[in-house]
Amino acid sequence: MSDMQNDATAQTNFGRSEQKRHTILQSAEELFLTRGFNGTSMDEVAVHAGVSKQTVYNQFGDKERLFREIVLGVTATADAFADGVTEAMRGVDTPAHLDAALRALARRYLATVMNPQVLALRRLVISEATRFPDLAAAYYERGPARVLAALADLFAGLVARDLLAAIGAARAAPDFAFLLLGQALDEGMFRVGEPVLTPAGIDDTADHAVDVFLAAHAPRPASS
Amino acid sequence: MSDMQNDATAQTNFGRSEQKRHTILQSAEELFLTRGFNGTSMDEVAVHAGVSKQTVYNQFGDKERLFREIVLGVTATADAFADGVTEAMRGVDTPAHLDAALRALARRYLATVMNPQVLALRRLVISEATRFPDLAAAYYERGPARVLAALADLFAGLVARDLLAAIGAARAAPDFAFLLLGQALDEGMFRVGEPVLTPAGIDDTADHAVDVFLAAHAPRPASS
Repeated sequence: MSDMQNDATAQTNFGRSEQKRHTILQSAEELFLTRGFNGTSMDEVAVHAGVSKQTVYNQFGDKERLFREIVLGVTATADAFADGVTEAMRGVDTPAHLDAALRALARRYLATVMNPQVLALRRLVISEATRFPDLAAAYYERGPARVLAALADLFAGLVARDLLAAIGAARAAPDFAFLLLGQALDEGMFRVGEPVLTPAGIDDTADHAVDVFLAAHAPRPASS
Repeated sequence: MSDMQNDATAQTNFGRSEQKRHTILQSAEELFLTRGFNGTSMDEVAVHAGVSKQTVYNQFGDKERLFREIVLGVTATADAFADGVTEAMRGVDTPAHLDAALRALARRYLATVMNPQVLALRRLVISEATRFPDLAAAYYERGPARVLAALADLFAGLVARDLLAAIGAARAAPDFAFLLLGQALDEGMFRVGEPVLTPAGIDDTADHAVDVFLAAHAPRPASS
């Protein structure tokens, strides 16, 4: 074979291996989310993914490593959301523009967190927090805390541009997050398989959260 | 034996049986909270409680019924807290009095929810929410939702006395609850065995939550 053919073969093999890895991860996620860590075996993951058990072990080592990879998949979701936060607020320069941008951001944030797959992953991590405390802490850091940090950066920028008040700004990110998510997320942990919010409920909750947030965090009008 | 002696014997037997029941519940709670539902056996509960396995079965039927009784123990905690909410606000009739009463209530609410035993029970219920969805929903109704309902009653009373604004009052209870609890409770689900808040952190969080709550929900001053 020519070098070019060798390269092409290597690329195809790499592509197949990546494809298998992806299929195994998807199967493992589905099984872990529905059956938990103890209720899932490497054998079942292999059967569900349509690969040999040896392939699963070759790719992931053991069940705990496979589980960690699934749980830390939250990193990609949180990073993508955090990038979107910065993007959504670029060029916001008036109170009216800020108001509209916050309402759009709130809708997206609430819908993302209340996604059934996201809720199921949270339940799974909480279920295994006693067995894997470091993994649960890592999930928190890379998921919820990562998003709160992105919001804190965003709000600090808005304070610097006099679009939010400086007083109390250190807590603006958790105020926004939990006015918005608090009740639905809490209820969502305990109601399995029932949607907690309708699309209209998402809109109402988002608008009310922004109203309360701005009542506390908008700059005070200068006294004349 | 005289009738009086019969009564005394019956009372002593009843007292012993109640005492055993209490000891079994305490042992079962400790085991379920540290080892989960699957990791706990009726044998272990009996050994831990120092009673026979037969006594455990006679009192509770089977492991699932024992588990349900532990989980629904939240009812007593929530009822006691809800009674305290009404009590704490009795006679509040000025904005300054309301401010102080809300700060005291917020400290107690946050400290109650962040109690390690309460957090562990929440984690346990979430862990078993897929297996026992009706039990998880009942826990939510009798615990968190019960407290939110007591707060909603409280705030409706304050609106009627013009101490809170009517606009947005329907969401005053979850606003108060999640401004206060949201971040700590979220983090507390993922950090096992590490206290999330110091006593000073509880005070700061409570004061900030009340500041934001009143910025949004205090009546607007009449324009002069």
